[in-house]
Amino acid sequence: MIPLDDRGLLLGDGLFETVLSRAGDLVALGEHLERMAAGCAVLGLPAPDRREAEALMRRAVSDGGLDGARAAVRLTLTAGSGGRGLDRPDAPAPWMFATAAASAAPTTPARLRVSSVARNAGSPASRLKTLAYLDNVLARREATAAGADEAVMLNGRGHVACAAAANLFWIVGGQVFTPALSCGVLDGIVRRQVMAAVAVTEVAVSAPALAGTEAMFLTNSLIGVREVASLDGRMFEPSAQVAQIAGLISSPIHGGGAPA
Amino acid sequence: MIPLDDRGLLLGDGLFETVLSRAGDLVALGEHLERMAAGCAVLGLPAPDRREAEALMRRAVSDGGLDGARAAVRLTLTAGSGGRGLDRPDAPAPWMFATAAASAAPTTPARLRVSSVARNAGSPASRLKTLAYLDNVLARREATAAGADEAVMLNGRGHVACAAAANLFWIVGGQVFTPALSCGVLDGIVRRQVMAAVAVTEVAVSAPALAGTEAMFLTNSLIGVREVASLDGRMFEPSAQVAQIAGLISSPIHGGGAPA
Repeated sequence: MIPLDDRGLLLGDGLFETVLSRAGDLVALGEHLERMAAGCAVLGLPAPDRREAEALMRRAVSDGGLDGARAAVRLTLTAGSGGRGLDRPDAPAPWMFATAAASAAPTTPARLRVSSVARNAGSPASRLKTLAYLDNVLARREATAAGADEAVMLNGRGHVACAAAANLFWIVGGQVFTPALSCGVLDGIVRRQVMAAVAVTEVAVSAPALAGTEAMFLTNSLIGVREVASLDGRMFEPSAQVAQIAGLISSPIHGGGAPA
Repeated sequence: MIPLDDRGLLLGDGLFETVLSRAGDLVALGEHLERMAAGCAVLGLPAPDRREAEALMRRAVSDGGLDGARAAVRLTLTAGSGGRGLDRPDAPAPWMFATAAASAAPTTPARLRVSSVARNAGSPASRLKTLAYLDNVLARREATAAGADEAVMLNGRGHVACAAAANLFWIVGGQVFTPALSCGVLDGIVRRQVMAAVAVTEVAVSAPALAGTEAMFLTNSLIGVREVASLDGRMFEPSAQVAQIAGLISSPIHGGGAPA
């Protein structure tokens, strides 16, 4: 339970990370905690204690009986209680908690739909995993209401940014593209892994640029690489290149061997 | 206290209203509750029970010993618990609470600063009071760090939208202007009252258009009309026209007589 004057609850003032737990291994934990610390710096909040964060996450896994399972572990950090209206107290005391739930990997490719809800590239929050995630909730809701699985969000300039809960890649003429972080994009950990594994061109392009794509895929820490079946109803053939990329980055994410 | 799986806490999935209480009178309560119900329709949430909302607010005032005081009463509605990731449960069960705190009217004109944090006019949430208020927190923080009181937020097209916690008006050649709602602006209750009292032109203009302003003022339910002292360091003379507008709308907001 959390108090009613918590700024995360009242104003979305805080951050989260969603980490894959595989048989008790918190995959890429260090990168997740580094990203949260970097986000705290942007928001002007003290960074969380890494040992405490890890202990909270491990306890959430074991309390949920998920030590042997594939699980999503969410670490949430709020700006804590107090302040007056929008203004934080002089010395904010962030509050942190973790929850865990079993999480199956998706077994089907995703059907995407371009959303009418814009991504706010003009806010630093658009490059962070913040508690102010309502735009993404609305974009996802619009997509599922139309029979799709996930939304493609464009920023205020009409440039392709990301999916509601994933980074987005596409392939044209064998070349791999992804939106630049400046388009209002989270610096995804699997996004980084894909960019380290294969040549990827970061671009700022509007939705019509997706018309000539041969294949698309989504990435995030829970799904790894997920192929896209369709965009606004236009079907894609299964792509050997996407399968190859998924294979290249599968060991740190899906292997469960060495920590990433 | 609120449970850790609340979607307001985790995702900013919810709405709020801030109502002025004067000597036990909840000013413009009906308009606030109507606006929250309209917001629920946009977000796809069931509207709150008005009697329950009013009872919660009245209890917050009396529990705080604020029946005789000037107080800010905040009504918060979250999308409730559950769902998986971004997706709401099939039948969301919103959760509602109210808090109250003494609130003095500001006695000095506001010093404004144009913010680098954009308002997301491309999301319907930009026209609602949602729990995903982090952009406004960041804009305010930037303004106060620079010695100002409040931020002026521009949308992704560079058009003037609003202050971090108020609507914005300005005067050129005796004519009153305010950003159109489509700029990413909350349909403020005092904003409506000003527009009903005097001729106001709704515009979509970029920040340089403010260079020729003679006077500016802010409005919200707690401050009523607050004159602006400066914008990015440029000082304004006290304006008889702003004082006149404040007087015209003062009775429903500040009179404590007939409900607005």
